[in-house]
Amino acid sequence: MKRQTRQNDPLPSWNDGTNKKAIINFVNAVTSEDNKAYVQPMDRIAVFDNDGTLWSEKPFYYQLYFALDRVKALADQRPEWKEQQPFKAVLEDNIEGLLSGGMKALLEVVMATHSNNTSDEFEQIVLDWITSAKHPTTGRLYTEMIYQPMLELLEYLQLKGFRNYITSAGGIEFMRAWVEDIYHIPPEQVIGSSIETKFEIQDGNPVLVRIPKLDFVDDHDGKPVGIHKFIGRRPILAMGNSDGDLQMFQWTAAGKGLRFIGLIHHTDEEREWAYDRESLAGKLDKALDEAQEKKWNIVDMKTDWRIVYPWESEV
Amino acid sequence: MKRQTRQNDPLPSWNDGTNKKAIINFVNAVTSEDNKAYVQPMDRIAVFDNDGTLWSEKPFYYQLYFALDRVKALADQRPEWKEQQPFKAVLEDNIEGLLSGGMKALLEVVMATHSNNTSDEFEQIVLDWITSAKHPTTGRLYTEMIYQPMLELLEYLQLKGFRNYITSAGGIEFMRAWVEDIYHIPPEQVIGSSIETKFEIQDGNPVLVRIPKLDFVDDHDGKPVGIHKFIGRRPILAMGNSDGDLQMFQWTAAGKGLRFIGLIHHTDEEREWAYDRESLAGKLDKALDEAQEKKWNIVDMKTDWRIVYPWESEV
Repeated sequence: MKRQTRQNDPLPSWNDGTNKKAIINFVNAVTSEDNKAYVQPMDRIAVFDNDGTLWSEKPFYYQLYFALDRVKALADQRPEWKEQQPFKAVLEDNIEGLLSGGMKALLEVVMATHSNNTSDEFEQIVLDWITSAKHPTTGRLYTEMIYQPMLELLEYLQLKGFRNYITSAGGIEFMRAWVEDIYHIPPEQVIGSSIETKFEIQDGNPVLVRIPKLDFVDDHDGKPVGIHKFIGRRPILAMGNSDGDLQMFQWTAAGKGLRFIGLIHHTDEEREWAYDRESLAGKLDKALDEAQEKKWNIVDMKTDWRIVYPWESEV
Repeated sequence: MKRQTRQNDPLPSWNDGTNKKAIINFVNAVTSEDNKAYVQPMDRIAVFDNDGTLWSEKPFYYQLYFALDRVKALADQRPEWKEQQPFKAVLEDNIEGLLSGGMKALLEVVMATHSNNTSDEFEQIVLDWITSAKHPTTGRLYTEMIYQPMLELLEYLQLKGFRNYITSAGGIEFMRAWVEDIYHIPPEQVIGSSIETKFEIQDGNPVLVRIPKLDFVDDHDGKPVGIHKFIGRRPILAMGNSDGDLQMFQWTAAGKGLRFIGLIHHTDEEREWAYDRESLAGKLDKALDEAQEKKWNIVDMKTDWRIVYPWESEV
């Protein structure tokens, strides 16, 4: 009997419990025409943070490893970097040294490695990297470090007429290069941080050149701003895992009608990582307090998830 | 026999001719799996300018009339405007005086009338206006000044699996308030110029406050930038009517595979307006030269369109 239940289960990697039940109850309510919480398909907008919500973010955000690898790849063309911080620290694999430079140093590395190419060139650079680079501790491709329970949730929502959007502090063009293959989320449903682009005709060919200038930071207050700018509708479901998602939660929760707010709490140091209030990447402090106070759904990775990564199901 | 043909005709308001044939041939080619120009539904992105392409733009862009009406509505709260240009000119119905102030004066009027409210408040203000304000010469609602042949084209493309986007120099939030009802284009498929918004908690309620600061100008070079930012895919069909659309045409045309570029030429001074190279609103000069040189489809409103506005079919 148990096996049969699992076959009909839209979320087989979620253990039975309050959170799984809350998700299914919510989806049933907003998709049943005779329910007073019914929502038309057009308005079934779900938003998901990426780092720490759809894939892991430890030891540090994976886009940073991309930037570090790019510094090394570009070092021959930039001999001055050997003596110039923060690039010197990167070339010496001194991550502590880089992080000690704070946001300013990180931004400098991101700008130097994400710009001065065309949108088509950048997409290819990201694709080459994401299909070959390996995670520093697991040795897996980064695209294997995605959460199986969240893949099932994305698929379940899509089948129920939702449109799933990513809204991440990560780079919009960095994500668009690969998320369609991995999460089945198309590029027009990806919102992220961006640098400016400039239209130019190069040798008779129109291109968009990436400029080393911040355009938009899709984090904290920026998340509802980005959601409103790109979608123009208020989501009915939001999931995230850090203080950077708090304003997205608040904006979503304040809409009229039934809402689902899900906070992923990283509690599993055996299968993944355990961290919250003191973490540099994925700091979860104020959002945890507010989730407790407002009785949002706090997903406990250790108890709620039967498996974490897709490869565990092959074992 | 002729009547029967019209019944099966996806574009009954288009006269038979080169342009109608070109549209239908293009759609057939990209939607037929056995055609070498076949395009998967996901990539069937069509982009449309709004002013002068989906609705009229004469005597001047309709969003300007909204701004002028807002100046008058706000005048009681802003007594200083009586003596302060460009507001003085607006309050005295001196449009020439306003336009003589150039882009700077227009921007000042737009900022003063489009900001310092929340996104929800602004949407309601636009809705109240668009459902009541009348066009200065025809006395029609502005939403009646839309082109019947373009409505048919939008519907035809949608039926054939295309997603239609608006990409307009007009305000993104101004358009989103009404285009879903009028063109059946949902808010997430509307790209336009924007001012900044700021997330705030007001009396415990999260709101997005509209700030009098330009965020993005979706015109000329901005159109391909906006398309890439919001959609992340290159369109396969683009239609516009002015020099502001030229870079969108170039960006679309440069994609691999079959492309359709359509330029609406305003040639009908009896049923609509006739203008091109010398016009302030909807100036068409360089784009007309390039369309002729590259043999893009130049739609001649006078000869290609059997009717212009929906109400003509009621006569």
